[in-house]
Amino acid sequence: MRLSKRANKLVGQEMFIILDKAKDLESNGKKIIHLELGQARLAPPPNLLNETCKSLKNKEVGYSSAFGVYSLRKKIQEKLQNQEKLKVDINNILISTANLLITQTFHLVTDEKDSIVAFTPTFPSYFSAANFLNLNLIQVPLSFKNSFALTKKAVDIAINKNPKVIIINSANNPTGAVYSEEVISYLLDRCLKKNIWLISDETYSDISYGQSFFSLKHAISKNVIVFSSFSKIYSIPGFRLGYALANPRIIEKLSLSNSSLISCLPIFTQKGVEKILLNDSSYVENAKEMISNVLKKVVKILNNSKSLSNMYVLPQAGFYIFIDISQSGMKSFEFCDYFLKNYFIACTPGICFGSRFDNFIRISICGEQKDLIQGIKLLVNHFDKNL
Amino acid sequence: MRLSKRANKLVGQEMFIILDKAKDLESNGKKIIHLELGQARLAPPPNLLNETCKSLKNKEVGYSSAFGVYSLRKKIQEKLQNQEKLKVDINNILISTANLLITQTFHLVTDEKDSIVAFTPTFPSYFSAANFLNLNLIQVPLSFKNSFALTKKAVDIAINKNPKVIIINSANNPTGAVYSEEVISYLLDRCLKKNIWLISDETYSDISYGQSFFSLKHAISKNVIVFSSFSKIYSIPGFRLGYALANPRIIEKLSLSNSSLISCLPIFTQKGVEKILLNDSSYVENAKEMISNVLKKVVKILNNSKSLSNMYVLPQAGFYIFIDISQSGMKSFEFCDYFLKNYFIACTPGICFGSRFDNFIRISICGEQKDLIQGIKLLVNHFDKNL
Repeated sequence: MRLSKRANKLVGQEMFIILDKAKDLESNGKKIIHLELGQARLAPPPNLLNETCKSLKNKEVGYSSAFGVYSLRKKIQEKLQNQEKLKVDINNILISTANLLITQTFHLVTDEKDSIVAFTPTFPSYFSAANFLNLNLIQVPLSFKNSFALTKKAVDIAINKNPKVIIINSANNPTGAVYSEEVISYLLDRCLKKNIWLISDETYSDISYGQSFFSLKHAISKNVIVFSSFSKIYSIPGFRLGYALANPRIIEKLSLSNSSLISCLPIFTQKGVEKILLNDSSYVENAKEMISNVLKKVVKILNNSKSLSNMYVLPQAGFYIFIDISQSGMKSFEFCDYFLKNYFIACTPGICFGSRFDNFIRISICGEQKDLIQGIKLLVNHFDKNL
Repeated sequence: MRLSKRANKLVGQEMFIILDKAKDLESNGKKIIHLELGQARLAPPPNLLNETCKSLKNKEVGYSSAFGVYSLRKKIQEKLQNQEKLKVDINNILISTANLLITQTFHLVTDEKDSIVAFTPTFPSYFSAANFLNLNLIQVPLSFKNSFALTKKAVDIAINKNPKVIIINSANNPTGAVYSEEVISYLLDRCLKKNIWLISDETYSDISYGQSFFSLKHAISKNVIVFSSFSKIYSIPGFRLGYALANPRIIEKLSLSNSSLISCLPIFTQKGVEKILLNDSSYVENAKEMISNVLKKVVKILNNSKSLSNMYVLPQAGFYIFIDISQSGMKSFEFCDYFLKNYFIACTPGICFGSRFDNFIRISICGEQKDLIQGIKLLVNHFDKNL
């Protein structure tokens, strides 16, 4: 029996190949240092977990609205109003899984074989969502030399490809780059003039400790869709919860998309997040401080390396460091394989984030700190020894 | 800004239109009797909820595998082996949201504009998933005269449409019909010979109290994909959990589909279901008995009606009764609107389940029993009075 053409195009998230290999080794008794996962070890806010359980015990196990739980949407509105002085309405807000929102938003603004531009390196799910929907994803690479910043030149290249939609990911996974207000505004202006949709994935925006983050949330009345996730900021990736901000016509369509794909999301997870939303500042500040401290330690080790000190860009946000491994003479999957087999350390191959980045690996700094430091030291020693 | 053609095709689940109107009335202080929801009022198994909370308190809030939690898949395997004497392997099993599996399985075996056959009346999500994927869904109507049974003649009509895939829903929502072994075997045989994929949605199979249910689970090594849900049987629709059974090549592709769309599902919900899976018989028997008792009461009222006693088919499974409302002289949406406005009772329009069924409504019998009985009595009185 033959599968469809689109099924044959499905790639999923190739970065999980290394994770699977690591798990195979673990099931054979090997201790693995995980530098490949963007999964915070920080405990989630206790209130959030308690409220989720309370909702479960209250038997809130029925269907919710395809727009998401109303009271959570209301709290998001209040938070944006209070903390970001942003005037949005309830009908600008929809709850969904942030990862699913990639496919959902692409689906709303493209038909098969349409083109979409992503600036690389970037989050691999954009590639898999584009494949799922049979889109032509055009990669516009940013350069290490410019610290992976979005530039006006890159924007012009993107616009000239004449795509239906451009997606940006600032703060960026995997580079940690935060794009400047000037260039994002330029991009917005060019997209408006050229009738191009602009999708802004702001999942890591709350975890910025360098340059201040410039959001596109203010522009949602136009051709802009913004989405974000509660996974990273509250250390609850397993909740699979995020939200979209857009004009009401888009939000209405997204509710139909939810209804078509998943009906709705659980009530109890939404109630859990709702509980913490307006009182999250101490948790978030603490989380940022912890990650920032870990980052400092990691950076110190990297900067003391004679081979790697110039091979990475200091991240301004997020959990990741993107490291140039050209000196190994290996391609990124080959290197990650080698490193896993010889050092029992799992990293993510750079090519997962864009075809031009096969000489990079991504290191996640949000795991167990002792393991992380040991892993980075082994990485540095490997390169310094072999230089 | 223009949306895509496929966005314009999005319909979501139109049956929620009545629910939304009912909620509007409720927010204005009206008491509404809900006969439109397939959401059991039965409390979920306490162990299931406790285990979900335990998993949350253990901070199992990270990513799970795109195949689903291994130990849950293992338990499903054991259950199928023990209770249905079915030999399946772990790699025949994948966890996903059952509603999402409709889109996911369609996606694997069709390309845009391919044809798919559904026997109507049937679950509206097949229509919305087909729209999401830009498929041509061909409805092959079953007849009230035959108690909405699947017939060999209907199978022949379906096969002659030369579709890529046929989907069946037995036990059926909304009719409660359970298709016979003879006709399902005939369908399977014809699909095999004609190279047509067969998708079997067995969500209501566990809640059959009439004719014994014939599953296609034994045929998954062939061109068959089976999926089911934990929503109905454990009264946990809000968990959004179900599973697919198929050959390993399909399961592998579904894991890529999960990874592309949602990454994975929560661990804690899966751990909750895992807890009850092998010890669910008393809960399930009790649930079936309760629904069966309610059904008897409802049927007694309907049978005493001079206008409606011959206007429905006794369901053999599930939560629903599909009632012919031709005598009202109204189309189904018009009738549901009228009934909501005048009696404050919400029902689901028949046209949501197939274009030929605009003279039917669906009544759900799984709600609050007192309300349900009152609602059915008002429905009967309305028709008897106006006859």
